[in-house]
Amino acid sequence: MTTVAFLGLGAIGTPMARHLATPDFTLAVWNRTAKKAADFAATHHVRHAATPADAARGASVVVTCFPTSREVAALLDGPDGLIAGMTKGTTLLDCTSGDPATSRQIEARLAEHGIGYLDAPVSGGVAGAEIGTLTVMIGGSEAVMASVMPVLEAFGEKIVHCGPVGSGGALKAVNNALLAVHIWSTAEGMAALAKAGVNPAVALDVINASSGRSNTTQNLFPARVLTRAFPRTFRLALLDKDVGIAAQVMREQKVPSPLIQLTAELFAAAHRELGEEADHVEAVKVVERQAGVEIK
Amino acid sequence: MTTVAFLGLGAIGTPMARHLATPDFTLAVWNRTAKKAADFAATHHVRHAATPADAARGASVVVTCFPTSREVAALLDGPDGLIAGMTKGTTLLDCTSGDPATSRQIEARLAEHGIGYLDAPVSGGVAGAEIGTLTVMIGGSEAVMASVMPVLEAFGEKIVHCGPVGSGGALKAVNNALLAVHIWSTAEGMAALAKAGVNPAVALDVINASSGRSNTTQNLFPARVLTRAFPRTFRLALLDKDVGIAAQVMREQKVPSPLIQLTAELFAAAHRELGEEADHVEAVKVVERQAGVEIK
Amino acid sequence: MTTVAFLGLGAIGTPMARHLATPDFTLAVWNRTAKKAADFAATHHVRHAATPADAARGASVVVTCFPTSREVAALLDGPDGLIAGMTKGTTLLDCTSGDPATSRQIEARLAEHGIGYLDAPVSGGVAGAEIGTLTVMIGGSEAVMASVMPVLEAFGEKIVHCGPVGSGGALKAVNNALLAVHIWSTAEGMAALAKAGVNPAVALDVINASSGRSNTTQNLFPARVLTRAFPRTFRLALLDKDVGIAAQVMREQKVPSPLIQLTAELFAAAHRELGEEADHVEAVKVVERQAGVEIK
Amino acid sequence: MTTVAFLGLGAIGTPMARHLATPDFTLAVWNRTAKKAADFAATHHVRHAATPADAARGASVVVTCFPTSREVAALLDGPDGLIAGMTKGTTLLDCTSGDPATSRQIEARLAEHGIGYLDAPVSGGVAGAEIGTLTVMIGGSEAVMASVMPVLEAFGEKIVHCGPVGSGGALKAVNNALLAVHIWSTAEGMAALAKAGVNPAVALDVINASSGRSNTTQNLFPARVLTRAFPRTFRLALLDKDVGIAAQVMREQKVPSPLIQLTAELFAAAHRELGEEADHVEAVKVVERQAGVEIK
Repeated sequence: MTTVAFLGLGAIGTPMARHLATPDFTLAVWNRTAKKAADFAATHHVRHAATPADAARGASVVVTCFPTSREVAALLDGPDGLIAGMTKGTTLLDCTSGDPATSRQIEARLAEHGIGYLDAPVSGGVAGAEIGTLTVMIGGSEAVMASVMPVLEAFGEKIVHCGPVGSGGALKAVNNALLAVHIWSTAEGMAALAKAGVNPAVALDVINASSGRSNTTQNLFPARVLTRAFPRTFRLALLDKDVGIAAQVMREQKVPSPLIQLTAELFAAAHRELGEEADHVEAVKVVERQAGVEIK
Repeated sequence: MTTVAFLGLGAIGTPMARHLATPDFTLAVWNRTAKKAADFAATHHVRHAATPADAARGASVVVTCFPTSREVAALLDGPDGLIAGMTKGTTLLDCTSGDPATSRQIEARLAEHGIGYLDAPVSGGVAGAEIGTLTVMIGGSEAVMASVMPVLEAFGEKIVHCGPVGSGGALKAVNNALLAVHIWSTAEGMAALAKAGVNPAVALDVINASSGRSNTTQNLFPARVLTRAFPRTFRLALLDKDVGIAAQVMREQKVPSPLIQLTAELFAAAHRELGEEADHVEAVKVVERQAGVEIK
Repeated sequence: MTTVAFLGLGAIGTPMARHLATPDFTLAVWNRTAKKAADFAATHHVRHAATPADAARGASVVVTCFPTSREVAALLDGPDGLIAGMTKGTTLLDCTSGDPATSRQIEARLAEHGIGYLDAPVSGGVAGAEIGTLTVMIGGSEAVMASVMPVLEAFGEKIVHCGPVGSGGALKAVNNALLAVHIWSTAEGMAALAKAGVNPAVALDVINASSGRSNTTQNLFPARVLTRAFPRTFRLALLDKDVGIAAQVMREQKVPSPLIQLTAELFAAAHRELGEEADHVEAVKVVERQAGVEIK
Repeated sequence: MTTVAFLGLGAIGTPMARHLATPDFTLAVWNRTAKKAADFAATHHVRHAATPADAARGASVVVTCFPTSREVAALLDGPDGLIAGMTKGTTLLDCTSGDPATSRQIEARLAEHGIGYLDAPVSGGVAGAEIGTLTVMIGGSEAVMASVMPVLEAFGEKIVHCGPVGSGGALKAVNNALLAVHIWSTAEGMAALAKAGVNPAVALDVINASSGRSNTTQNLFPARVLTRAFPRTFRLALLDKDVGIAAQVMREQKVPSPLIQLTAELFAAAHRELGEEADHVEAVKVVERQAGVEIK
């Protein structure tokens, strides 16, 4: 039976951890806001650890799931840190949508102690986390990945080895950057069509039968923009962070990338304008405000 | 039986015209390069007109299908021009992927003579034209559209009224601008992932199961880029023209549109670099050259 | 003695016209808001014309000075229009900061009547207009330009032949587009330096001794931004219009121009955000709002 | 008498070091390519150090002048490194045009050993270095700056305290980013004017009397572009690096900066296209190639 620690009981982390609160695993949980971890532990009859080090003690796999790599890096050191609790040969499975540069730094720090590291961001949203059908994008050694497969299979359905450490995060960031590009450019185009007298539903219907279609035109605009529902499923602040990571990856890899860099600026400005709680699709509202039209 | 003139026997126009070379229509054809029209007329037993005016004589519907609105506007005047041949109450059905401003000028010119005008660009490519399943995006009066429905149904499957004259062209241009945005931004992202050590096929597989997917990631990159096939199905020069039209529409409609404007510049530069014969997907090669990597 | 008509008594036009209200010229004035022309005529003892045609009657040179080419084009036709009043061999000297495409259309219309046309936008601002030291950028025939030289020299100090009709406006637009690029990019850079703890006055002092200096860093930022004075000397709405003209010229000339096109979008959005009365330098406030800092 | 070590005898470093090879200082030099340092030492009768540690021994001020911060950071550690040779209370005066993030890391490393650090990039070029009239932009403690003033005054004329460590580099990078913005946008505008039939010399003459003027239009274009001389005074590769640093500073400071970010991409692409030896003004040639015109 695998002993696992799970750190980071947020919107995605909590349903992921539930798949490990089964007879197949011995689970300890920790969270920055202790109450969440205490409640989870009480409900699921698992151990509530007092510190990251305490959570890691005895675990062969430590799973982390935080907003950014910065929070993970901050858990490593000190008497209460992960390194103090983890032993040689164990693995940190980092499901944070992290930035590749920090992931590589974490990998190097852990390697000094013989601890393995995988960056393993997930996609599929809260719904996918709840039913255990997440896609997991893994950067790091294939052997290490094989050793933590039971944990991965507990919450993931499509488990993909991407390349060296950092490449999971790079792929997640690029996917999300494309999403951001699609949202903004579709908003530009749809705003102009609306002002030109084209019914937005008709426009989307035609585009979705044609070469310009995307997940954004097929799903997000019909269900969220035209209806003015804008449900809050994924925060704009997080998409802004992800596009920023993608933009940084492009620069590190020396790929001239005018569209993704410009999109990073547009989302940074939209994030500031709309605040921390706005949904990612609400970026459309910035285009609408500048154009003086609602897409509906 | 409807008498129809068809002008412009290019890659799309020729298979469109074939659907009108049936017992249901009396067809005359004209083409700038006369040999094409002569061959078509001989093969399909239809009339080869000597001039646009000659083609239009007796026709209740004149169909035009040219690279740009400029060619259509140039056919109107003079003793051999369309206006000389068309009579009050007939209709010019312009299937060119035109620019809305010129379409509105053509509409106004024809209205002085009591001639109706629809801008009616098509999508679906050569294949759709051959089997008669084109999408037709129509700008203009709904009554006029109803009056030419038998012609539209001969080659179109999805016939959509978009709004006033120019809105068919605006929608077509926006669709193609989104296609252009997707091609370039996907190339940027995929080039960086390739340089970061991620297998492109794996990356596309993950993106296509996630929120960043588009027709471009689902179809164009797997079949045309990773294979290095780059088949020539739609010229980059034409996509450049379409993005330019979309960019102009955005400006006319006063919609700040940094992404689509920037994309117009990128495709203009790629068009100059790759020449007149390159396929639209070959724009990816410009990103690859700048990044120093092939996406394969 | 040259007989001159002056149409358009705005902020620049009024002081320009004053230089023609001298014994060297016989002057008639006309303005859309008649009161302004009546007051000017009374003060300067010149003729107040009832219509453009009336103003033009007898004049060998008609000077126009309006916000955009659209207003000039709208004055040409009808019984009260300029063409009705002007005679063969006279010249329309258009000091509007116009767009080259419309200027070429006006030239063609007037040529049908044997009337000459020069596009002749000015720079130097209200101050330069008052003391008669404007720079005049002239597009059109050099012979026509020579024929109106006495009028040009009345208000202009630097009178430059640029090229064919439209090239005066093109040069004015490009100059103003560079100004716009400088304002926005300096705002970006100065906002970041301010947030990084660099005193803006120190930063400008260093830049102005170095390679990044411009009229914007040497004059506009020290006098208008750091002081928070933002005097209203040239409306943002007009600079937005000029950058838009430059962007259109770039496209007509097939020059890929990502920076000027993007700047056109930024100023269009700033114009919408700040309204019709804002000064052009207040565009800096949009950058400051997005950055969360004041440059002072 | 101040004992000084100078490391980095490149195009700028060599003439800077000469101002320290005087009776006022006891100088040791070191260079990655040892021959340069040996020659310098022989010519100027100063000590040629075998290693960075050896150079630093006994020095109260160590001056570094390298292409990037990376080279400086790489000199710190190991038995031959600067830290091994420097003593508590001495100062590293880093005249590299560095990146602020690395400068802050170097500062922190040195602080552990009681060694002071200033980032102190210079402007004024080779000519300014030779006659000792450089501008020096200093980030770090004012007290430390005061302690190294004799060294600064040996080669600098305008010595400016900018703010905390990193702010010297930030200001230098922003200045150079503005230069890059000006070069590219002027090239765009001038290419369009040339194609529109405006003589480039006339255009520059007008712009330089108007609001769009900059060091680029006043000096670089007349002397280097119109003449087609393109002298190699400052490598495009270095300007690309500096714009990249500025772009990174903008992101760190959370300043949405579409123009500077886009300029970073344009210069990265131009650098790849034109290679390592091209001068920074040769970026104009990329715009010319895309536009199909020479500005002359």
